[in-house]
Amino acid sequence: MSSIFTKIIKGEIPAYKIAEDEHFFAFLDINPNARGHTLCVPKKEVDKLLDLDESTYIGLMAFSRKVGKAIEAAIPCDRVGMTVIGLEVPHVHVHLIPLQSMKNATFQYKEHMTPELFEETAKQIRKKL
Amino acid sequence: MSSIFTKIIKGEIPAYKIAEDEHFFAFLDINPNARGHTLCVPKKEVDKLLDLDESTYIGLMAFSRKVGKAIEAAIPCDRVGMTVIGLEVPHVHVHLIPLQSMKNATFQYKEHMTPELFEETAKQIRKKL
Repeated sequence: MSSIFTKIIKGEIPAYKIAEDEHFFAFLDINPNARGHTLCVPKKEVDKLLDLDESTYIGLMAFSRKVGKAIEAAIPCDRVGMTVIGLEVPHVHVHLIPLQSMKNATFQYKEHMTPELFEETAKQIRKKL
Repeated sequence: MSSIFTKIIKGEIPAYKIAEDEHFFAFLDINPNARGHTLCVPKKEVDKLLDLDESTYIGLMAFSRKVGKAIEAAIPCDRVGMTVIGLEVPHVHVHLIPLQSMKNATFQYKEHMTPELFEETAKQIRKKL
């Protein structure tokens, strides 16, 4: 069965899309640690980060860097953090999180956002790409 | 003034070293989220991950992949997670953390380790490099 991220990539589940190229896809995390929290995923469905072949791994990191710089330019923050955990969805995803304090990095605090604010946030980030 | 990580790289502060090449250095985090928690740093002292030039950034990620695979082979865990936060020490560092559950990823829980266990852990990881 396809992962929820594969369904998002295929357009079967809606998402606030940030960027896409041949191999990678980025969209807003629907349960964000901070406004602008984005997920970057390879289109190839692999569970664990370190099981990606080297070229896909490096490609994902280069893609995440580009998206991260756009987030940093669009969203007021101290810096953009990067986290790969992967214990919940078995499809590699890089969290890019605008950080003001450790609160945004621990995955304990969640930011409430309306659909309008998600849409506006995605637009702001896309503009900086 | 040199960062604490530059002092570690120069050998002015002791650390449990895991790996080193021309541009990067890896050692055990002294306040670990889990046994085997390792930091990978560029020798170049830059504060923010996304301010690294692209080649240093990609080099750091490739280096972290190699070290991460050694950790995954040496330390029993579900997978090795990767986190870059950077709010405390202004010198880029990639956290590689053996994860069993979210507890190991939130930076709230810390593992108590003796100097002997640090030394033994570093040896186990180095053997898998």
